[in-house]
Amino acid sequence: MHQKMSADDLTAFIAREFPQVAQDFAVEEAGPMRLTLRLKVAERHLRPGGTVSGPAIFALADVGMYLAVLSMIGPEALAVTTNCSLDFMRKPAAGADLLAEIRLLKLGRVLAVGDALIRSDGSEAPVARASLTYSIPPAAVAG
Amino acid sequence: MHQKMSADDLTAFIAREFPQVAQDFAVEEAGPMRLTLRLKVAERHLRPGGTVSGPAIFALADVGMYLAVLSMIGPEALAVTTNCSLDFMRKPAAGADLLAEIRLLKLGRVLAVGDALIRSDGSEAPVARASLTYSIPPAAVAG
Amino acid sequence: MHQKMSADDLTAFIAREFPQVAQDFAVEEAGPMRLTLRLKVAERHLRPGGTVSGPAIFALADVGMYLAVLSMIGPEALAVTTNCSLDFMRKPAAGADLLAEIRLLKLGRVLAVGDALIRSDGSEAPVARASLTYSIPPAAVAG
Amino acid sequence: MHQKMSADDLTAFIAREFPQVAQDFAVEEAGPMRLTLRLKVAERHLRPGGTVSGPAIFALADVGMYLAVLSMIGPEALAVTTNCSLDFMRKPAAGADLLAEIRLLKLGRVLAVGDALIRSDGSEAPVARASLTYSIPPAAVAG
Repeated sequence: MHQKMSADDLTAFIAREFPQVAQDFAVEEAGPMRLTLRLKVAERHLRPGGTVSGPAIFALADVGMYLAVLSMIGPEALAVTTNCSLDFMRKPAAGADLLAEIRLLKLGRVLAVGDALIRSDGSEAPVARASLTYSIPPAAVAG
Repeated sequence: MHQKMSADDLTAFIAREFPQVAQDFAVEEAGPMRLTLRLKVAERHLRPGGTVSGPAIFALADVGMYLAVLSMIGPEALAVTTNCSLDFMRKPAAGADLLAEIRLLKLGRVLAVGDALIRSDGSEAPVARASLTYSIPPAAVAG
Repeated sequence: MHQKMSADDLTAFIAREFPQVAQDFAVEEAGPMRLTLRLKVAERHLRPGGTVSGPAIFALADVGMYLAVLSMIGPEALAVTTNCSLDFMRKPAAGADLLAEIRLLKLGRVLAVGDALIRSDGSEAPVARASLTYSIPPAAVAG
Repeated sequence: MHQKMSADDLTAFIAREFPQVAQDFAVEEAGPMRLTLRLKVAERHLRPGGTVSGPAIFALADVGMYLAVLSMIGPEALAVTTNCSLDFMRKPAAGADLLAEIRLLKLGRVLAVGDALIRSDGSEAPVARASLTYSIPPAAVAG
């Protein structure tokens, strides 16, 4: 299966469909079955003490997986998260964006499965790890 | 082990320590090893179409588990999420708050484990289910 | 949706279809959207030191969820596990069977979601907790 | 942190400490923070139809993570699984061994976190994916 939407296609798609989310994220790279998404960390993503909040990290993994699925099946926008398992491992570096590397491991008839490794921009040690399952409309994959 | 903080204690605690989060939640009930937390759903929690967003559901489960742990160990505020696994099962009802029922299943020397069942206020069918692990400072439990 | 197979039906089913597994388990109770399964702990389930092994606990949760799904959709035997998330909380009591209480939380067109609370027979404190997702053939639910 | 036990050390360790498990597995490779483990698939690992069973796949991920932790902290043998989340994605190839590639993502004072990608020997497409958390005795890491 080849890729249907490039990084630019995905950027245009979220700007149009999810304007309130689009300002938080930037698609760094999108290839076959993989994608890198940046969380442009701002005040609203922080907890007291300056750490990026759990919900913001969840959102990064979830939006990253969603876009990775869309890049393969096209802009159907019907895929929905059914499971997300997150391990929080280290405090994010202060003042740095977060980068999520998404791997799609399966793109099946009804389910897509992938994982995300999340790091602070400029650091090697992972901040968090997520695995995600999306339910996808059968027509979208067949089409 | 008996409960150290009541629902009122917890409400005062989050108002003082996490003012930006406090407006989103209300502690409905807090008993030994269990707690019910309400997400007061507002515009900022919604996705296009009016569904409560995934990050808002994650936050509800995570804050609920945090408060359930605090109610047992006291206001140390050092417990941190290490794992959260979420199953999203149904669309939340439009225009309804969400309620999370938290069960603490283990409160150990270094780890607390619990789960959350999340429903729309007034509905029986669960919207989501979460299991969560918190790492807790040993001193807090011993003390 | 009403229940299609009783505890006796399920017992007969696994004896016929999975004879090598049937000797390990006993269906204690099967009601609408819930089931209790016993692991008849024997030497082959133990680790050195006498603890029930992780794979045996996984099998208990997985077989329990499978039977809970079958009790609702009938003996199609096509449902397959897509996700299992396990928290191990306490050592099982020595010399005791394990009991898993399964709750089906969703029985949808393509996915069933449930969880399992696992205890040593005679103890209240949970040994383990599992959440499971099964992919089910659409025809089975519709029929 | 450097590696304390080689693939040969680990093989000798499991032969001595877990003889009943040792025959099922072979350590293919062990490097800093990573390890590859083979499940030598035999009749006892199979379900009707010839597929490797879920419990055998769980055991492969769990033993692999255990050995990856030991290779870094030494043969203390006290580390215990606290969480395992598994996604089952494809049927294993018939008649092939399974290989698990383990990555240690965090080796902390009290918790180790890693994941496993499981493939049939000779195939690229993953059969399953697991994330695992181990609780480790503080002394072992400090020492």
